[in-house]
Formats: sequence, C-alpha cells, structure tokens
Amino acid sequence: MKEFPITDKTKITRLPKRGVYEKEVVYSILDEALVCTLAYVHEGEPFQMPTGFCRMGDYLYIHGSVGSFYMRELADKKLKVCISVTHLDGLVLARSAFHHSVNYRSVIIFSVAEKVESKEDLYEALEVFTNKVQPGRWSDVRKPTEGEWKATMVLKFKIEEASAKVRTGAPKDDEEDYALDVWAGVVPLVTERKKPIPDPDLKSGVSLPDYLKS
Amino acid sequence: MKEFPITDKTKITRLPKRGVYEKEVVYSILDEALVCTLAYVHEGEPFQMPTGFCRMGDYLYIHGSVGSFYMRELADKKLKVCISVTHLDGLVLARSAFHHSVNYRSVIIFSVAEKVESKEDLYEALEVFTNKVQPGRWSDVRKPTEGEWKATMVLKFKIEEASAKVRTGAPKDDEEDYALDVWAGVVPLVTERKKPIPDPDLKSGVSLPDYLKS
Repeated sequence: MKEFPITDKTKITRLPKRGVYEKEVVYSILDEALVCTLAYVHEGEPFQMPTGFCRMGDYLYIHGSVGSFYMRELADKKLKVCISVTHLDGLVLARSAFHHSVNYRSVIIFSVAEKVESKEDLYEALEVFTNKVQPGRWSDVRKPTEGEWKATMVLKFKIEEASAKVRTGAPKDDEEDYALDVWAGVVPLVTERKKPIPDPDLKSGVSLPDYLKS
Repeated sequence: MKEFPITDKTKITRLPKRGVYEKEVVYSILDEALVCTLAYVHEGEPFQMPTGFCRMGDYLYIHGSVGSFYMRELADKKLKVCISVTHLDGLVLARSAFHHSVNYRSVIIFSVAEKVESKEDLYEALEVFTNKVQPGRWSDVRKPTEGEWKATMVLKFKIEEASAKVRTGAPKDDEEDYALDVWAGVVPLVTERKKPIPDPDLKSGVSLPDYLKS
C-alpha cells in the first residue's frame, strides 16, 4: 500500500490541495518529530498528552511508566486515540493580513492503543526510540535492568487511518495586492541541536562521543 | 489570582515536582508558542487539530474559516476542549538508557469554546495574533476587507483550568552510574528564525522592513 485510504476522519476538507495521503510522506513527517500529542476520551471529555514516540514499520510506539494512570487507561481499555505531529517550517508573510499563513507539515492518525507484551518488541522499541533521540546513543549507555524493564510500559498504535497536511512556498496574495508596497515572503523556522552541555557531575576524563561532535 | 487551582484534571500526578500552576509561568509558555493542539470529542471519539493561537488576558484565541466544519462544531455546540502547547528545549542524555529524558515546557488547558461575536474583540484578536507571528507586521499590511472579516471565525477559550509541566537541567542518574565511563549532558534544542526569503513575485523596489532585519 503506497497511500492511506481516505476516510471520513482523515479526509482533508479545508484546503484539500494541502492533503497528502502517501505513506512515504506521512512516515517522513513522523520520523523527523521527537514529540507527538496523543488525544483520547475519558468519561466523555477530551484529554491529551505530549509524548515522545518512535515508528517501527506500520506502528507508532510510545512508552511510559507502568504507574502512569493514562498509560494504564489506554492499555486496559484499548482506547481510541487521535495522534498528531506538527512541524512549523516558516512564517508566510503576505501583503494582506488575511493571507498570512505558516508553512507546516502535520500528520493526524486515528488508532487504538495496544499494549506491547512481547519482550523483543519492547526492547526494540526502546532501542529505536533512544537512537532516534540521539543516533548512536543506545550502544553507548547502560542498558535497562530487569527492574527498569518491568517499570516501563510500551504501547503501540497501528498506523492505518492517517493523513498529512502540508503547506510550502511563498505567500499567495489576491491579484491586486501584488502591486502594494508591502514586503512579502517567508521567514524560515529551523530547530537546531546546539553544542552539547556536559553534566556538571560528568566523570573526569570522559570525552564527548563522536556521534555528538557534528 | 496568581496560581491556577489544582483540579482532578490538571493535577500533575506523574513526577509531581515538575508540575507548575503559576499563571505567569503558564502564560509565558503559551506566549512563546505559535501553535497549539486542540483536542475535542466528536460522536464519542477523540479528534485534534494543530492551530495557531494567541492569548489576550485570561483567554486563548484561535481563528479559522467560517466554512470550517470543526470551527462550526466547536462554536455551535460549545464543545469542551483540551488544548496543549509544548516546547522541547533539550535532549537529556543520561548514563543509563532508563534515565534519558527531554527538557521541556508544556501546558494543558481544559476549557469550552465560545464564539467571539464582538467586532472589537475579533479585530483585536487578529491584530494580536498577526503581531505575535511577526512583531510589527499588522501596521504594515493591507487590513482585512469587510468580506474577509465575514469569512473569519474567531473562538476564545477561558484559561481557568490549566497547568504546566517543566523539566530543566542536567540528567539525574542512579548513584552508582555516575562512575561509568559514559558521557552525559544536555543537547539544547533551539528554534530559530532564519533570514527572510523574499516572494519571487515581490514588487521591485520594496525593501525588507526594519522589523525583519534583526
């Protein structure tokens, strides 16, 4: 399957030309994000949590503490969720206030929580997650103990009802406004990883690993 | 009121020391963000939308098209919402995989949609929103026409049930792990506004305004 089927819930009805259903695009937006927001319904009311995540194949994985009320709720009740990811890529400054916009790439997924029971799946998810946060990290650090694994709950969400919405490029103004003496264009927004700050309690003699040098 | 009252919905139960209920902190986190995610319930299921917003006093404002299904749903049914904002400030690289974390500042608000009917409130919200996206912009651009105002719906949400969650600083490892030969510290994440890119159709002779030069 190269494209997600368009459902009532994933169909982009506002500015439909911004809608993207290609799996490759949806996955690239997900893989670039460190945090998603996960919405669910509890006693008829909306709740949401920002949380780290990773993708493995056609599943999105999150993890948390076995003591977390919301992780247990999601797992025990196999709750329906709506998950979103948004990258803000630029401020789109048009000649008219009305046509101001932003360049962005967002994904919405509708899915259902499944508790990960297989140890291999759980181990792999944490390794993939850690290396997503910082490539090269997993092989460098102390691995979880049996007790730490037991304290960790991993949930997965099948990605089968999903769509993306993307805006790129210059402002679009009304024809007559192009003659105005107003500057128009895009201010790019970029999130950058800055120079690592060592822990004040870093053991002396431990140097910055190569994977953090670039 | 300097602090938000702690309710069943806003009480931080996981890692409670990260919970912050001071209005000033909650508002500074909101004011620094351009996008929030708004979750609501439709026919018993969770939905969410990423959307731009601004704050004026004790209200959060969003705007959209009068043709937007979800804006109309929110307005007509005065739907309950859960709104979140998250800033990711750094990757916290601990000596153990288990203690890896991120530095972040997030806010969760529970509220109810109210349609803004007053023209003054509507005008002010769009001006504040535009100047939040780009300080100095509103006075420089073509203002909305009567038709554009009529095509715009503004909703507001009273901020009275809200809390923040904040993590800052170095990793916290288990006592015995500080002796490991593993680098530990924080990789700061910073979102920056880059050099403005002029619209390819920019009228010749229009120069970059001062408020975009820094």
